[in-house]
Amino acid sequence: MTPQNLVYEGKAKKVFQDSQNGTLILEFKDQLTAFNAQKKGSFEKKGSVNSEITELIFKYLLGQGVKSHYIERIDDLRLRVLKVQMIPLEVVVRNVMAGSLAKKLGLSEGAQLAFPVVEFYYKKDELEDPLLTEDHVLVLKIADRARIDEMKRLALDINNKLKELFTAAGMMLVDFKVEMGMTADGKLVLADEITPDSCRLWDLSSGEKMDKDRFRRDLGQVKEAYLEVLSRLQKLIK
Amino acid sequence: MTPQNLVYEGKAKKVFQDSQNGTLILEFKDQLTAFNAQKKGSFEKKGSVNSEITELIFKYLLGQGVKSHYIERIDDLRLRVLKVQMIPLEVVVRNVMAGSLAKKLGLSEGAQLAFPVVEFYYKKDELEDPLLTEDHVLVLKIADRARIDEMKRLALDINNKLKELFTAAGMMLVDFKVEMGMTADGKLVLADEITPDSCRLWDLSSGEKMDKDRFRRDLGQVKEAYLEVLSRLQKLIK
Repeated sequence: MTPQNLVYEGKAKKVFQDSQNGTLILEFKDQLTAFNAQKKGSFEKKGSVNSEITELIFKYLLGQGVKSHYIERIDDLRLRVLKVQMIPLEVVVRNVMAGSLAKKLGLSEGAQLAFPVVEFYYKKDELEDPLLTEDHVLVLKIADRARIDEMKRLALDINNKLKELFTAAGMMLVDFKVEMGMTADGKLVLADEITPDSCRLWDLSSGEKMDKDRFRRDLGQVKEAYLEVLSRLQKLIK
Repeated sequence: MTPQNLVYEGKAKKVFQDSQNGTLILEFKDQLTAFNAQKKGSFEKKGSVNSEITELIFKYLLGQGVKSHYIERIDDLRLRVLKVQMIPLEVVVRNVMAGSLAKKLGLSEGAQLAFPVVEFYYKKDELEDPLLTEDHVLVLKIADRARIDEMKRLALDINNKLKELFTAAGMMLVDFKVEMGMTADGKLVLADEITPDSCRLWDLSSGEKMDKDRFRRDLGQVKEAYLEVLSRLQKLIK
């Protein structure tokens, strides 16, 4: 990958143009960031661990009928994905009260929510990804009513399938964030990573955090947690 | 009003128990605050000006079929209102991009929105009144689906009627905030003040701000603007 091919550099991934038409290459970085990149760290192999977790989950989701942009693995760090038109929203699904929502509402973490809550955040680092209501999404013309409803259905469908997967792997899916995009023929697909960077996962027996909160909150054993998530998923998904 | 009768003290009003059953007394203060009371000021007669503006607007709205908690004037600073069970939400309606939404989205002020945007903020000073999505309102059990829809309809109805009123008074209604409550027989009613503290009003010919932004942004002539709003409404409403 020459720097000329770089399309976009995010906090945990680089996106490159591909030699093939209509596809892109995702390269996973070892960097870890939190609080809109105010806190930075990394661990060796993080990129390859997260690319493998993402691949496993996307294969599992495809088997469950949920299409993503994932096509194939290129090497340790890199996945080939479909080029899609990204929707500039982070779609968050929450099953349990935690993280920024708990803080914002002054509630403690851990309460099961009466139903999975879907939230949209505007993907703009310089604005610190503000929460949007559906009216905001509409008035900013990011998506129309039908597209919003489709995004919510897709997010909830992914949530149902991920909850089953993580339960089988002995983890509670507390919440997660995904981005979505439109294929050339107008289909909405999941277009992101799904990793301990983007999910909150609590061990079902011990309650231990197995995700980026270990880094955010200086709990230690960050790499070990990510490796454990990978190892549990490997046992479930081929 | 003895201090024992004080039910609640807000930033711009005090609420007292009434000698009558089922009613309360609102006393308007001369104090002006902004940015969750980090900035404080006042001007003489502000309380009486705002109580008069509120009274005029509630009379106008009643004539248009919109019930509020307003019953009658007691004296210069005080209105008698129906005692209702307050819903802990600030309901904001926006016609034009301005204020906190413009800042949050990184947009400049003044663009007409494609439709009036309704927002809910959780009324909790200690949390700085965070924006809530409808899912948040539901999961916090602040209101159910039917009540949320009813609150939005009421907010939009008030907006339509206020827009007409302020247009006739030579002002653009940019946005406003109201609170609502439930009467003993389960009816949703407007239960708040409506004043230049709670609305953004721009003069239709000069574009000059005629509301609390003059105080927030140190534009001067705060009292003059409030008096001008009152004077224009007095010409339209008896």
